[in-house]
Amino acid sequence: MAWAEEALVLLDQRLLPDRVEHMRLTDVAQVAQAISDMVVRGAPAIGITAAYGAALAARKRYAESTVAWREPLEHDLQLLAAARPTAVNLSWAVERVRGLLSAIDSDPYPVLLDEARRIHEQDIAANQRIGALGADLIKGPCNVLTHCNAGALATGGYGTALGVIRSAHEQGLVKSVFAGETRPWLQGARLTAWELIQDGIPVRLLADGATSHAMAEGQVQWVVVGADRIAGNGDVINKIGTYGLAISARHHGVGFMVAAPTSTVDMALSQGADCPIEIRDEAEILSFGERRVAADGAQAWNPVFDVTPAALVDAIVTERGVVLAPDAAKMAALMAADFPA
Amino acid sequence: MAWAEEALVLLDQRLLPDRVEHMRLTDVAQVAQAISDMVVRGAPAIGITAAYGAALAARKRYAESTVAWREPLEHDLQLLAAARPTAVNLSWAVERVRGLLSAIDSDPYPVLLDEARRIHEQDIAANQRIGALGADLIKGPCNVLTHCNAGALATGGYGTALGVIRSAHEQGLVKSVFAGETRPWLQGARLTAWELIQDGIPVRLLADGATSHAMAEGQVQWVVVGADRIAGNGDVINKIGTYGLAISARHHGVGFMVAAPTSTVDMALSQGADCPIEIRDEAEILSFGERRVAADGAQAWNPVFDVTPAALVDAIVTERGVVLAPDAAKMAALMAADFPA
Repeated sequence: MAWAEEALVLLDQRLLPDRVEHMRLTDVAQVAQAISDMVVRGAPAIGITAAYGAALAARKRYAESTVAWREPLEHDLQLLAAARPTAVNLSWAVERVRGLLSAIDSDPYPVLLDEARRIHEQDIAANQRIGALGADLIKGPCNVLTHCNAGALATGGYGTALGVIRSAHEQGLVKSVFAGETRPWLQGARLTAWELIQDGIPVRLLADGATSHAMAEGQVQWVVVGADRIAGNGDVINKIGTYGLAISARHHGVGFMVAAPTSTVDMALSQGADCPIEIRDEAEILSFGERRVAADGAQAWNPVFDVTPAALVDAIVTERGVVLAPDAAKMAALMAADFPA
Repeated sequence: MAWAEEALVLLDQRLLPDRVEHMRLTDVAQVAQAISDMVVRGAPAIGITAAYGAALAARKRYAESTVAWREPLEHDLQLLAAARPTAVNLSWAVERVRGLLSAIDSDPYPVLLDEARRIHEQDIAANQRIGALGADLIKGPCNVLTHCNAGALATGGYGTALGVIRSAHEQGLVKSVFAGETRPWLQGARLTAWELIQDGIPVRLLADGATSHAMAEGQVQWVVVGADRIAGNGDVINKIGTYGLAISARHHGVGFMVAAPTSTVDMALSQGADCPIEIRDEAEILSFGERRVAADGAQAWNPVFDVTPAALVDAIVTERGVVLAPDAAKMAALMAADFPA
C-alpha cells in the first residue's frame, strides 16, 4: 500500500497475477470494505491499511465538525477493527491510533497520518530485521516450504516469511521454495509465486495435500510461515493449513519457523484456542472464481485460519529477537524487553 | 461403467457435476486414452474398464485375423496396463485376462467379455462386503472424513470408502461426512459430494488444508479412504493428501481406515516406497480449468499419489476380511487365505 495525493492506494490483490490494478481510497468505509473483501490481506498489511484508514476518518470527521469529531471517529475506529476478526494487527493498529487521540486538541488528521506512516515504516524495518534473524537459523543450502503469502504484499514491504526466504536466498542458504497453493484463495499460486518470480527465486507450487509427500521425500528442510496472531503462550494462528504443516514437519523432523513482527503478538490472548477464527462464505469452497465446482446441494465448511500449538513451533522470529521452542515465559520475556521503537 | 450394445459406456467423470454425459467406446485405444485422460478414475474402476477394453481388443484382433490375433492382442494389453502407472488394479485386470488366453483356441472375444463382466460383478460384491466389514469398526454415531472419491464412480459400483460410509450411515453410525475437496482435480467437491447428496448423506466440503483443524476441534472420529495400491507390508498408496491425513489422524487419535478390494493389494511390491508415483502435468496446478491462476513463470510439482506407511494405518478393510495394524505377516495371511472367488 502507499499514500499518494492525500489518499490510500491499494494494489487489488484479488486480481493478481492477471492484472495489476490499484484502488484509490479516500473514505474509511471504503477502507474497511477493502479489508473485509480481501483487496488487501496479510496481518501486518491490514494493520497498516487500518492506520491509514483512521487518518482518512480523522480528516473527514474534523471537516464535519471541529468540535464534535471524537465520537464519530471512535465509531470509525471500531468499524476498522471489526473488518476482519482474526489478525490482531488490525486492533493493534487501531489501539495505537486511539492512544494518541486524548493528547490532540486541534486537527487530528496530520497526527494520525504521521502515525500511519510511522507504523508503515516500522513494519518494513521489522521485516528486514526478521529476515536477517530468520536466515541465521537456516543451515543451507536447502529447500524451504511456505504457505499462503507472507511477503511484501502481506506487509508494509519485504515480507515476514518471504523476508526470511529473501534474506536466506541472498546468502545462498535457500536453493528453492515450495509454495503450497493455499486453497481456497490460492494466495500461494497467485501472490507468493508472483513475488518470488520477480525476485528471481526458484519457486515450485504444489497442491496443499502434496506437502507431506514432499517432506517424506526429504525435499524440504524448513517450513517458514507468517502469522495472523500469536498468543501469549506462543500458539500461532495463521492461514488454514498451517497447523497440518506443523504436524507434518514435526513428524519428519523438518524445522518449523514462524516469522512475524511483535505487532502480531497478542499478550492478552493466553492461548490460541481462545482466538476467534474467521469462517468465511462457503461459496469460496463450492465455487472456483465464477464457476461452481461442487455438486448442487453440497455444503462447505470454510474456516480460514487454524491454531498451531507452540509445542509444534521450533522458532518464532520477530524484530525483537528469536524465541526458540516458545512458551508463555519466553514470550513474556520477549515482549517485556526494552526495544527501540 | 456399463456394457451396452457391444460397447463400453463410460460416464465422463471430468464433466461432473455440471453435466452427465456418457462416452461410448468400441476400440481399445479409446479405452486406454480414456483411462489416461481420467474420463474414468479410481483404482477398481480403471481395472474393470481395462478388462472391458481387453474384450474390445480381442474382438478387433480376431476379426482382423483368426490365426494371428495373439501378438497384436498382447500389444493391446500392454497399452492398457501402461495407461496409468500407480493403481495396480490395471495390471491386475490385465494379468487376469492374460491368464485365460493360452486356453483359448477359437474366438477370444466372448471369453474375455465374460471375464470382464465377472470382474465387474465381483468388484461390486467385494465393495458390499467391504462396506459391511468397515461399518463394523465404527462406533457411532460419529462424523467421518474422506478424501478424493472412493465411491461408486471409482469402482464397479457402491464404492470402497464410500461403501463403508454408506453402510455405516444406513446403520445410524455415521451422522455426516467431511469431504476434502482434493486438489487438483477436486474429486471430493465434484464426485464424492455428488454421490453422497444422491444418497441423502449429509456432506460438508472443506479445503484440504482444513482437515487437521477439523480433527483438532474433535469433529472427526474416523478417516476413511480408498487405495490405488497396497504393498505387501501394508503400506498404502492413494491420492495425494492421504499421507498427511494419516499423520494428522494419528496425531489426534482419530482412526484411519483404508477400504479396498484385494485386487488392489500388490504382494509383489514389498513396500510403498518402491511404487511408481504418477507425476501429472504441472498445468493441473498452474491452471484451473481453462484459466491460468498461477503467476507467469511459476513451475509446479504435481505428484498425484503418496505413500502412507502401514504404521499409520489402523485398519485395511478388504472383501476377504479386516487387517488391523497391518504388517507384512498379516497381509500375507490375508492373501493366502482360501476365499471363494
